[in-house]
Amino acid sequence: MNASSMNVDLDQERLRKHLGPELYRHSLGVAETALELAERYGADKRRAYLAGLVHDYAKNLSAERLLALASHFGLPIDRITRAEPRLLHAPVGAALLPLEMKITDAAVLNAIACHTTGSSRMSLLARIVYLADVIEPSRDYPGVERLRQEAFQDLTGALLAAVENTIGSVLARGLLLHPRSVSFRNQLLLEKRMIGG
Amino acid sequence: MNASSMNVDLDQERLRKHLGPELYRHSLGVAETALELAERYGADKRRAYLAGLVHDYAKNLSAERLLALASHFGLPIDRITRAEPRLLHAPVGAALLPLEMKITDAAVLNAIACHTTGSSRMSLLARIVYLADVIEPSRDYPGVERLRQEAFQDLTGALLAAVENTIGSVLARGLLLHPRSVSFRNQLLLEKRMIGG
Repeated sequence: MNASSMNVDLDQERLRKHLGPELYRHSLGVAETALELAERYGADKRRAYLAGLVHDYAKNLSAERLLALASHFGLPIDRITRAEPRLLHAPVGAALLPLEMKITDAAVLNAIACHTTGSSRMSLLARIVYLADVIEPSRDYPGVERLRQEAFQDLTGALLAAVENTIGSVLARGLLLHPRSVSFRNQLLLEKRMIGG
Repeated sequence: MNASSMNVDLDQERLRKHLGPELYRHSLGVAETALELAERYGADKRRAYLAGLVHDYAKNLSAERLLALASHFGLPIDRITRAEPRLLHAPVGAALLPLEMKITDAAVLNAIACHTTGSSRMSLLARIVYLADVIEPSRDYPGVERLRQEAFQDLTGALLAAVENTIGSVLARGLLLHPRSVSFRNQLLLEKRMIGG
């Protein structure tokens, strides 16, 4: 199946204007990669494509707006997200999408809500969106090509490598490290050990 | 003050036999370094020296014994410590010391209990023991000399570098990363930001 043929019930022109050209291109890349991963691992392809398209819906919002919206929607604001409000674009996006884009599928919204930090309890769909986000075609960083290959061979191993990349990058840049990223990494490591991977 | 002149109420010969020669030598190094750091930063020197001496009291116990003792003492065993029981040597040591070495000083015991993972709520004494553990004279790894110097110039900065070393090493070795280490690191980073460090 060609990714661009995936018909989702969404005003894509409105989304393109909302995201701007660069973020829309990234989002199309995530959607297509998520679709391919869903096909490979037996997840719902339509949900994967849709979640990829809209995962960064709140990405362009300012830190002040993200904090205000998180508060408005009653989303938890911990000391990490208070200091690094950009992490809130994931759960705030999931809260805005039912209202602004009529997306109400809980599986899709959950995947979007945890696509930045990850979490120890992520569905297959959520894991696919997380991974697609960091390997979609426009991503370019050392090791991305190897990660793209591993993504289609060993989902858990590729996710582990991806979240460890992120943790290393967060430490190197002197940013706060969200505990959910660490829970996600530990969960993946435990799963690898269980399957002897 | 000469470290070896510090008179602590402890049967050092019994401790030496309990720890074995290598661990006893490390413990003396931690005690002396903790004493120097306590002098530098205005912490209680006797407590720092004593905590250094006995911080690894339970280090030689087997994983099975650590889990059994943690259970016996009602210490929390989470999924991380269940999979990596060696992390329990810190809190188990703090639980054994009142019974076996007559150490009952809560400040000393608290410092010992969190010397391995760290935590977001550590006293000055606990921070000193944590740092002394990784810079004492017998430690030898890339960057230790620089860390030794920083330890006496910028306690928060040196602790941040130390815990980030540990996190990097845990990731590289494929071990589970305890969330308290990450809380400790985030806390230190927030403190650095507050003081504009």
